[in-house]
Parts: sequence; structure tokens; C-alpha cells
Amino acid sequence: MTIITRVEARDIRFPTSRELDGSDAMNEAPDYSAAYVILHTDQNDGITGHGLTFTIGRGNDICVAAINAMASRLEGRNLEDITANMGAFWRDLTSGDSQLRWLGPEKGVMHLASAAMVNALWDLWAKREGKPVWKLLVDMTPEQLVNCLDFRFVSDVLTPQEAIAMLKRKADGKAEREAQMRDQGYPAYTTSAGWLGYPEDKVRRLCREALAEGWEHFKQKVGGNLDEDRRRAAIIREEIGEHRTLMMDANQVWDVDETIANMRSLAEFNPYWIEEPTSPDDILGHAEIRHRLADSGIGVATGEHCHNRVMFKQLLQAGAIDFCQLDSCRLGGLNEVIMVVLLSAKFDVPICPHGGGVGLCEYTQHISMFDYIAVSGSLEGRLLEYVDHLHEHFIDPVRTRRGHYLIPEAPGYSITMKPETLETFAYPAGAAWKEG
Amino acid sequence: MTIITRVEARDIRFPTSRELDGSDAMNEAPDYSAAYVILHTDQNDGITGHGLTFTIGRGNDICVAAINAMASRLEGRNLEDITANMGAFWRDLTSGDSQLRWLGPEKGVMHLASAAMVNALWDLWAKREGKPVWKLLVDMTPEQLVNCLDFRFVSDVLTPQEAIAMLKRKADGKAEREAQMRDQGYPAYTTSAGWLGYPEDKVRRLCREALAEGWEHFKQKVGGNLDEDRRRAAIIREEIGEHRTLMMDANQVWDVDETIANMRSLAEFNPYWIEEPTSPDDILGHAEIRHRLADSGIGVATGEHCHNRVMFKQLLQAGAIDFCQLDSCRLGGLNEVIMVVLLSAKFDVPICPHGGGVGLCEYTQHISMFDYIAVSGSLEGRLLEYVDHLHEHFIDPVRTRRGHYLIPEAPGYSITMKPETLETFAYPAGAAWKEG
Repeated sequence: MTIITRVEARDIRFPTSRELDGSDAMNEAPDYSAAYVILHTDQNDGITGHGLTFTIGRGNDICVAAINAMASRLEGRNLEDITANMGAFWRDLTSGDSQLRWLGPEKGVMHLASAAMVNALWDLWAKREGKPVWKLLVDMTPEQLVNCLDFRFVSDVLTPQEAIAMLKRKADGKAEREAQMRDQGYPAYTTSAGWLGYPEDKVRRLCREALAEGWEHFKQKVGGNLDEDRRRAAIIREEIGEHRTLMMDANQVWDVDETIANMRSLAEFNPYWIEEPTSPDDILGHAEIRHRLADSGIGVATGEHCHNRVMFKQLLQAGAIDFCQLDSCRLGGLNEVIMVVLLSAKFDVPICPHGGGVGLCEYTQHISMFDYIAVSGSLEGRLLEYVDHLHEHFIDPVRTRRGHYLIPEAPGYSITMKPETLETFAYPAGAAWKEG
Repeated sequence: MTIITRVEARDIRFPTSRELDGSDAMNEAPDYSAAYVILHTDQNDGITGHGLTFTIGRGNDICVAAINAMASRLEGRNLEDITANMGAFWRDLTSGDSQLRWLGPEKGVMHLASAAMVNALWDLWAKREGKPVWKLLVDMTPEQLVNCLDFRFVSDVLTPQEAIAMLKRKADGKAEREAQMRDQGYPAYTTSAGWLGYPEDKVRRLCREALAEGWEHFKQKVGGNLDEDRRRAAIIREEIGEHRTLMMDANQVWDVDETIANMRSLAEFNPYWIEEPTSPDDILGHAEIRHRLADSGIGVATGEHCHNRVMFKQLLQAGAIDFCQLDSCRLGGLNEVIMVVLLSAKFDVPICPHGGGVGLCEYTQHISMFDYIAVSGSLEGRLLEYVDHLHEHFIDPVRTRRGHYLIPEAPGYSITMKPETLETFAYPAGAAWKEG
């Protein structure tokens, strides 16, 4: 029996705004940050569970406060009891305290906080099983996996029985797909070259470097100024050629009609998708955009700010998206992520999880590999996002080769930061902030 | 020129869970609470701006922390500059700090916090004008009102020009409707008798008291146990008779199919509406419920957890609701409330704002009177919610007569609490909590 004795929450921030890394039309100067959780246990095995939720700076302390407010729901509990009925535990953590639930429900600061805790629990569980999280998942029976899920508010679209049947249909070929992932890795695209705040020469240089490394799929930020967007699109197309993929990401700055007008103008650069064209809450708006852009060949992608399974359910029901960009820690941690992976598979919409920030790539590689091996069995339309920021702070960082993620091998969820990082980037007392 | 010198935030909580006031299927034991804001200025006129956001206990401190994180966006600013362009100010407060926006956007803790600040600003503005808030609004020109709004993410459904035209069409008759409100008040329903945790004899006694006071419309909580819901519905019907109105409120506990089955069973008690049958995020689920219950005569109502104008826009577009139950401080304060009032009027859906808690009735009377006098010009299907809790803590509390709210007359938004309340119910140091 393993008792979780303490939930430790830390405020970790990286001063990325100094270089305009991560700048886009909505988020002009983020400081990539983590509300970081460490789960301590009563075992003397040196294993702790790590999880984080990603924010972009100010307010990271509010997420830390929310984690502390929820800590008592986890402290003193027994890991084996929790993992034996992970779906019930998840509902209890996210909705069991009705006073805290009022602050959401299942959205905003509280849900971000629950994600850090839930993901830390999965990390702890996987480390104790000696497996990376993707492997823990693909080795489960369909019944065990479904037992990790809460079907409340999605049962009109997906029942436990149907989910089990879906997973059983993909049981054949799991071993082959796992071997393929170990051999070839998972295909990815890069966002590293396309930030809004980067000058032209930096964009060109980063494109050339990425091409040399074998990248085939590139994303640029749009939504600042249309002429500027066109100029940058032309530069990137010039560098990457006509046959490679170019995605565009507006980070929510447009209304519906603006999106149509702007994407008609940008269509000559043959974008593969337009990402977050408008409010992340606007399901019907995205459906309208997709409908009106159908003749252009431009897909609609969203999800990094989609806050829970109920919203994804509707994006899928409404036929609003071509690509599901779920976020590993805006959803309430891995349990809800798995639900969205299943919902997407049911609607035959590929998942292309939101990467970047700090730690998101570390998380999402597990999710997409699990999707391929155990759920969808397909790579069609599926790409992991890759951003070359801050990986050096993790003990088990992502590894890429020729535009593919290599399969994670260390036990856990790959999200454990180095002790010196936790010290240096502690906010506001760490050395990185004292210099700043 | 009036400079806002300081944003003071306080954690105020009432130990309502001791009596099961406010108990429902989702919220079994709330402690009604307020993250309370006081805006201080550089004027020596004794006027301060008060606003609160309502929570139900734990986590109220997180809202206070969020207010403190946003305070710098207001401190040092000039009231006249803000009110001259209130729409731009509102966008700046809710979305202008992109780092804080990441934590929503426009939802959860951060949006609750912005509501308290925005409403405090309106209170300050109205007090300085010497008018109650509803009067400040109805005396504005259409252009002035529209200048208070942010049309981002709703322009596909409502433009500033269209909003101005709508308001102009209702200019005739404003004086008569204002006089009518002063004379008769605004019709209301009572939730005071129907809480889930109350025993049968208390329900009967409260029904009889309410009838004696002239109430015609009653709401009960459902969603615990169906047999129990039926038993309580039978009791209330027995007490109030067949010709009075009975609403039912499930507080989000059902899935779509469960809602249909349960409301078919409860239909014999002739409910006027089913409120919050399922997840507040499930726009398409509410539309499905409304469609499938159309033959029963039971309306669909929701909104107290609907977090922003984008969600309301879609509830209206999808034909998902018969009644719009906007919340005065879950939406980002009065500016966004006005937008939802306009959107509802456009779709000809009546507003029945969410009352109860602490301070919600004080707020909503201004909203519904504004709607009637200046926007919809109609009382059809429109009722204010009334709950007889905690009004004694306000300097200018709601007043009711024969099932109607009387028009508020004191300057401001009626939300200023008594100094002794702010002291006694301060959490955790106040006397009310030391006894507990």
C-alpha cells in the first residue's frame, strides 16, 4: 500500500518574454511557466510523482493556490485504491468538492490545477509500474482503460460499452504498431520558426535549420497584420517549397467573418489548416468557418484552449473541426485526455495535440503514441507539434529525429524537471528572476 | 478627475451550510460567500465603489487572489477616462493582460474576479452620478450604451449598428415603462421553499408563508432521487394549487437521456421549466433536450454557470433555451450582462436572471428593470428569481411586495454590505467563523 503523504506545489517560471519566444497575435510576451506538483509517498523507494500545468506567466501563483486548495482530496489517500478506480477518483477530484466546483465547473484555474495533480498521479503510477505512461496505457485491457474514465456529460455520444468495443476492434496489430513507433517514431511538425515576434532573417535561418534537420511540416503565427502575415507566409513558402506543409495559427484574434476574409487572402500560400481562428468557446463559429472555407482546402483546427470533454464532444458533434488539438493540461489531466482521444476516434477526427510551452511536448508524445497503438491505429492527418524550447530542463526530455518524435522509454510521464531547474527558476526567489 | 487609488479585496463568507440553506443536487452544503471589492478614489466625497462575485465557500480566497492579480489594471486609472470608453476598458480588463488571459480565457476564477471589479466600477460610476445602476443605463443614449460593450466574438450575430437600432426601436414608451416599474415592481418567483435539504414540514410551511405573502411562482430543486423529487413536487403542488407556476432545477446532475426520462416522469406536476438539466457547457445537449421535450410543454432554462457571451450566443443560435438565466457575476460584470440582454432580445428569449446566493438578487433587479424599460419592453415569460437569504447584510437590500421586486432607488448597484457584516463575516478571522 502506498500512501500519498504530501502534495507539494511550486511556482516555476522561465523568462521567455525577453527573447519573444512564443509570441503570437494574442500572447505578445509570454513567460512560459509551470504550476508544478510533486506527490510524495510513504515509501522509501525514492519515487515521487511529478506533474505540471502550463501557464504563460502572471497568474501561475493562482494555479499554485488552487492546487493547494485541492491537495487535501489527495493527501492521505492510497495509490492502489485510486488506480483501481481511476474514473471515480477523477470525478471526485474535479467535482467532488462542490464548493470548489462552483469556481468552474471543469474550466479555468481550477481545472488547470486538477490537471497538474492528475498528471502527477499518472506519473507516479507509471514510475511504480516501471513503464512510460504510453506503455502503461497500451498494456491495459479495454475494460481497465474505460475504468479510468468518467462518462458523465458524454454518455449521449459515447458509452463505456461502446468505448470497450472500439478498443477491442484495435487490439489486433497493437504489437506491430508499437514496434513501428519504436523503430520510426511519430511524425511531427515544427512551430519553432514561425513566431510572430521574430524578424525575417531569424525566420529564414530557422526554416533552413529545420529543413536541414529533416522537418517536412511548418507552422506560422498569423493574426497580427494581414500584409505582414502574407509577407511571412511568402518567406516561409520560399524557404520550404510548395510540397511541404504549412499550417497557420491565429490564436483566437478574429471573429467569424474576419476569419473568412483573411483566410481567403492567405489561401494562395496553401495552408493546411487555420488554427484557433476565433474564440475557443465558439463551437458554432468554428462550424460556420469550416463550412464556409470548405472549398478552399483549408482545414479548421482548435483545442489548446478547449477546456473539457463536453466542449470537445460538441466540436465533434457539430462537425466544427478537421483536427483535434487537445491540450494535455488544460483538460483535467490524462483521464479526460483519453476520453477526448476516444471521442475523436469515434468521429474519425485526427488528434494533433497542442505542443510547445514548457513540458507540453513531453506530455503529448505519450498521448499520440497511445492513440496510434491502441485507439485509432492510424497516422493519417496526425502530427505532433514540436517546439524547440526548454526541453533541457527535463530529466527525460523529448528526442526527435528527422521530423519524428522518438518513443519515450523512461518510466513515468517524462515531465520531471531537473532539481537545479526547480531551484533556479522558482518564482520569484530563483536566480533566474533575481538577475532579470 | 477621479483617480482610482486602490482596489481592496476581501474574503467574506456566511456559514449557510449549517442550516442547509441553498442545498441542491450538485451543491449539497454551500457556504454563501463573496469575493468582495472596494474601489477607493482620491476624492474626499466618501464614495467608494463596491462589487462582489459570488462563490459557495472554499475557493473564495482564490477569487480574492485573482482580484489582487488584476488590481494593477485599475489602480491609478481615471474613472472619467474609463467610463468614456467602457467597452474598451472592459476588453482591456478581461483580455488585456495576455498572461492572465491564458488562465481562462473569459471563464472560471479569472472571469469571476473581473466581474467583481467591473461591477464595483459600475457601482462607483452610478453613485457619483447619484443614480441607481438601472437608471444610469436607461438614461443613456443607444450610442452611449453600445459604447460600453465589446462586440468581439459576437459580431457574427450582433453588430454595434444593429444594437443601436434595436435600442432606438424601444425608445418610445421608456418613460411609461419606468413609471410602471416604480408603481408595480417587477414580477418574481421564489426559490426559498424548495431546497433539497429541507424536510417536508419545512417545505409545506415555507410554501404557505410564501402564498400568504402573495407569491405566484415557485421553484423546487430536483435531481437527487426521482421518487423523492416526485414526492416533493406533489407536496408543493398540493400547497400551491394547479394554476400557480412550478419550476424545477436539477443543478447539472443529469446526462441528456436521463433528463428526458426524469422529466417525462415529472411532467405530471406540470413544471414550467427544467433548469440546468445537464452540463452548463453542453449547448447541443440543451438543444437536444429542448427538442425532445417540446411536446411536454416543459421549457429549458440555463445560464447561471454559462461563463460568457460566446456561450450565450450559441445557446441562442442553437435554439437551446426558452429562458436565459444569466448570472450577474459569472459573466464578466455588467458590460457583458448588457451584451447578453441584447442578444436575448434579438432572439426573443426572455431573461430570468439567476438570483439567490448572496447579493445576486441585489444585482439582478437592476438588470431586469433595465431590460424591460430599455431593451425588450416586455414582461412576457420574464421573472426575477427571489431567495430570502442574507439580504440583511446590505445597506440597500432588495424589497419585495406581493411577489414583485420594488424598484431600487439608492444610487449605485445595491451591493454595498454593512461595515459590521464585512467585519463579522471576514474569513477566517471574523467572529462568525470563530464561533463555528
